[in-house]
Amino acid sequence: MRSFDFRLYLIKDMQLIESSIVDLCCKPSKQKRELQESKSFALSIFRGQVATAQVFPYPSVLNDEQEEFLRELVGPCSKFFEEVNDPAKNDALEKVEDHTMEGLKEMGAFGLQVPAELGGVGLTNTQYARLVEIVGSHDLGVGITLGAHQSSKEKYLPKLASGTKSSEHIAAYCLTEPTSGSDAASIRTTAVPSPCGQYFTLNGGKLWISNGGLAEIFTVFITAFIVERSFGGVTNGPPEKKMGIKASNTAEVYFDNVRVPADCVLGEVGGGFKVAMNILNNGRFGMAAALSGTMKGVIAKAVDHAANRTQFGNKIHTYGVIQEKLARMVMLQYVTESMAYMISGNMDSGATEFQNEAAISKIFASEAAWTVTDECIQVLGGMGFMKDTGVERVMRDLRIFRIFEGANDILRLFVALNGFQNAGIQLKSLQKALKNPLGNASLLAGEITKRAKRKAGMSTGLTLQGSVHPELAHSGELVRSVLIVNLDQGCQTMVCGPKPARQRVQASRSLSQGLPSAQHEKMMCETWCTEVRCTEIQSTAQILQIHSYLDFTFYV
Amino acid sequence: MRSFDFRLYLIKDMQLIESSIVDLCCKPSKQKRELQESKSFALSIFRGQVATAQVFPYPSVLNDEQEEFLRELVGPCSKFFEEVNDPAKNDALEKVEDHTMEGLKEMGAFGLQVPAELGGVGLTNTQYARLVEIVGSHDLGVGITLGAHQSSKEKYLPKLASGTKSSEHIAAYCLTEPTSGSDAASIRTTAVPSPCGQYFTLNGGKLWISNGGLAEIFTVFITAFIVERSFGGVTNGPPEKKMGIKASNTAEVYFDNVRVPADCVLGEVGGGFKVAMNILNNGRFGMAAALSGTMKGVIAKAVDHAANRTQFGNKIHTYGVIQEKLARMVMLQYVTESMAYMISGNMDSGATEFQNEAAISKIFASEAAWTVTDECIQVLGGMGFMKDTGVERVMRDLRIFRIFEGANDILRLFVALNGFQNAGIQLKSLQKALKNPLGNASLLAGEITKRAKRKAGMSTGLTLQGSVHPELAHSGELVRSVLIVNLDQGCQTMVCGPKPARQRVQASRSLSQGLPSAQHEKMMCETWCTEVRCTEIQSTAQILQIHSYLDFTFYV
Repeated sequence: MRSFDFRLYLIKDMQLIESSIVDLCCKPSKQKRELQESKSFALSIFRGQVATAQVFPYPSVLNDEQEEFLRELVGPCSKFFEEVNDPAKNDALEKVEDHTMEGLKEMGAFGLQVPAELGGVGLTNTQYARLVEIVGSHDLGVGITLGAHQSSKEKYLPKLASGTKSSEHIAAYCLTEPTSGSDAASIRTTAVPSPCGQYFTLNGGKLWISNGGLAEIFTVFITAFIVERSFGGVTNGPPEKKMGIKASNTAEVYFDNVRVPADCVLGEVGGGFKVAMNILNNGRFGMAAALSGTMKGVIAKAVDHAANRTQFGNKIHTYGVIQEKLARMVMLQYVTESMAYMISGNMDSGATEFQNEAAISKIFASEAAWTVTDECIQVLGGMGFMKDTGVERVMRDLRIFRIFEGANDILRLFVALNGFQNAGIQLKSLQKALKNPLGNASLLAGEITKRAKRKAGMSTGLTLQGSVHPELAHSGELVRSVLIVNLDQGCQTMVCGPKPARQRVQASRSLSQGLPSAQHEKMMCETWCTEVRCTEIQSTAQILQIHSYLDFTFYV
Repeated sequence: MRSFDFRLYLIKDMQLIESSIVDLCCKPSKQKRELQESKSFALSIFRGQVATAQVFPYPSVLNDEQEEFLRELVGPCSKFFEEVNDPAKNDALEKVEDHTMEGLKEMGAFGLQVPAELGGVGLTNTQYARLVEIVGSHDLGVGITLGAHQSSKEKYLPKLASGTKSSEHIAAYCLTEPTSGSDAASIRTTAVPSPCGQYFTLNGGKLWISNGGLAEIFTVFITAFIVERSFGGVTNGPPEKKMGIKASNTAEVYFDNVRVPADCVLGEVGGGFKVAMNILNNGRFGMAAALSGTMKGVIAKAVDHAANRTQFGNKIHTYGVIQEKLARMVMLQYVTESMAYMISGNMDSGATEFQNEAAISKIFASEAAWTVTDECIQVLGGMGFMKDTGVERVMRDLRIFRIFEGANDILRLFVALNGFQNAGIQLKSLQKALKNPLGNASLLAGEITKRAKRKAGMSTGLTLQGSVHPELAHSGELVRSVLIVNLDQGCQTMVCGPKPARQRVQASRSLSQGLPSAQHEKMMCETWCTEVRCTEIQSTAQILQIHSYLDFTFYV
């Protein structure tokens, strides 16, 4: 798709920021870094292998009791968002209405993953994903309010050990600073330990803090500190005026000689960066789930309009241009949904290496939701541009999702660097070769390709027979051919390719289980596989994973 | 890029809506429809020819006096938009501030193309385009207010013959109805002639009328009527709540037994549809000019940010990912700008067949501006999402440009149908073959290809030697190869291809004239040509026209 030296820019960028971004990569413990130990599919392809353990069969992690519990939550949660929450009003008021906020607290929405013994709802990641999907289908502004709270809460709760209190207080995650966005390691907030060792004195300012104007409890990064507003010296600026997610409060937060008790340190002193990145990594699957819901909501509106709007003497759903739009929208939603629950399922099964998958799902979901919503507006025509139909608000809300929680451009580098790091290529030597990337690119790629071919065991290792349902054999074959091309062309493709992110779709067992949706899903799976095969050679993994979702269809 | 039967959908859609949309095509008089007479480049490729008369050399239509006059206007106009108009405030107020509106009237902005003898400024299309570009770079909401006014005014003015009055009164163009959007022919507003023949009685309602709440004078379609609010029976709804272009007033307009004098008919009774389409056709070049300005404004913000923002220890403009974004943004702006002035130049030279070019420029400009602004936000990161930087407003404003004045999806069909119609293929027989498009597609394409090859005179006709500057010979060769592939594959590509719209870039003579920007432009031209050649085979014309712009660089 891209010509010229553009495709080499990622190598150059990696060289420029490698020393900073390397910390962004979640480093598994030393044993884990040995090649044979990683079960992550997204990491395995960097080694020229296909690790299907986390992919086939599609993870099904809820036991009967957990499934029943989730089923009981889904109804009231949907009802609340249909009947109580008013997304248009939240958007206009630039805050979540007070009675909605109260309702959310009563439902336990601010303690969804807090253990039951500490007063929370105690949801697994998969259960959480399902509820977040409902939130995302109705109001992304509320989603951010809950998400920003949730991402902090998980960590500080054991420290505070005070469930009842924390389930009432709203939390905020404070990382970004005026001069520190994607380059999260460059923060300037300072924490000076007291001579007695009993506390730290915190000074500095944080920017664009979700819930910054509402929170009582802040997770503040340099070293990660839990800071309560009640400590004194914590103030915040006015709510920022934003394009979207207006319902969520975004504000600057200032720390002026805040005295933070030493036992409010999370993790190691000076190790806040790792904590911050882990929170981000762990939170990303939720974004894919939420945006999967967003797409469902938006698609429903497009379908409804297409089925009822007459132009040129026909309902517009009879026109190919509309049919193609709807078909692509549904495929993108399907792919995103299958990614989200695969990752939550792996997390629930105790997987520790899902960071690359999570990053990819964040990139894919944020771009897919943007495309789907944009197309919905096009299907609705002029009505899509009007506030009344509620789609323009979704579009405004969505714009930030490609920027925050790791800008997609940076996350693409993260995926590549993390992959190489895991593959055991010494970054030092890579860095050396990268000093002259134009001169060394083919050399690098050659080395990597050799390695990949050797590891892959071309003749035996790259088949999905036995994993894929017989009816999907053709898709399986497409996957295989893409995989081989990818390995042939070497990991250079993985680094240079502008979209390693699109490496997720989900495979499935719906066929085996004979679910009513199986044939429809099969069609989507095959279409997706063929298109990806035709268009983007680097989209290997995208194809592979669509297979295992077909039997699952996670609709509680 | 697309696989499966999707690529056949345009044939099916054309079949379904052909009888309605055929009227959308501007029909030249019968003589003009003979193949050899059309000078339009965009039409010529449907006949397998390359008509370069309107392309080479790049049109330069202003005489010294006109250029001097334009130069005198550019300064004050820019100054007004920099110092008086406040786009953020207009957006927040959801109207153009009163003192700004007064200032615009004083400057003559509501009579830009009204002949001087009737009290207007009397601008040519090219002069008008240049000023619209300035408006577009600052405030698209104001642009719509002026544009909606302008598009009506041109037509009704000779009828009213009342320059002074009309330069104070705001006009609106009333076409769309609740059940009639893209299918403009299906309007339901009725006009019943009086027994005496002296007047018509108008009843009905119009939707989403720009300036609907402000206008005193309305051009109302079924038959085109000039309706003054003072006739009585004209009312309007409240301003619509929209995603963007909030500064412009958008409202429903109702006609309740409005008595319209018979001399207020524009064109023939019952011929309003043609008038409406002509106004739209004539107005589209202005949109490309305005959006060219929008892109300039947005690019300036992205460049400024990239040059000053440090992350990972470097100014971010040093990263390839940012460089690629900026390079593509600049190319898209360049292509759009060259299209806009090529069309305005052709119009000023008396060309009558620019409708396909204008439609293509509207599609291209609205999509290019959307991409450029989206990328600007990505470059700005979180700041791009904040209202303060003023880019999110531009993005909201831009969303409607792919929908209104002919939805891009419909305009793509228009381009294809208009091309075939001009190529002399009887629509009746086409329609017959299209009854079974899957069965007949290759047959149709075969026929067309034969015809195309015969007409093209492959061995002699398809060279740009002599037209293109020697330094652009390589680009010229790329053009030639794309043209040949296009003709080989037949016009089927033109119909089925999802993006006939992207058929515009501009060539140039900057090199011949030795302008300081020539080498920079040459680079953009070559990059564009190579990329288009590499990626989209149907983008023939895009390439061709970039050549003639290189010597022109229309910066007054």
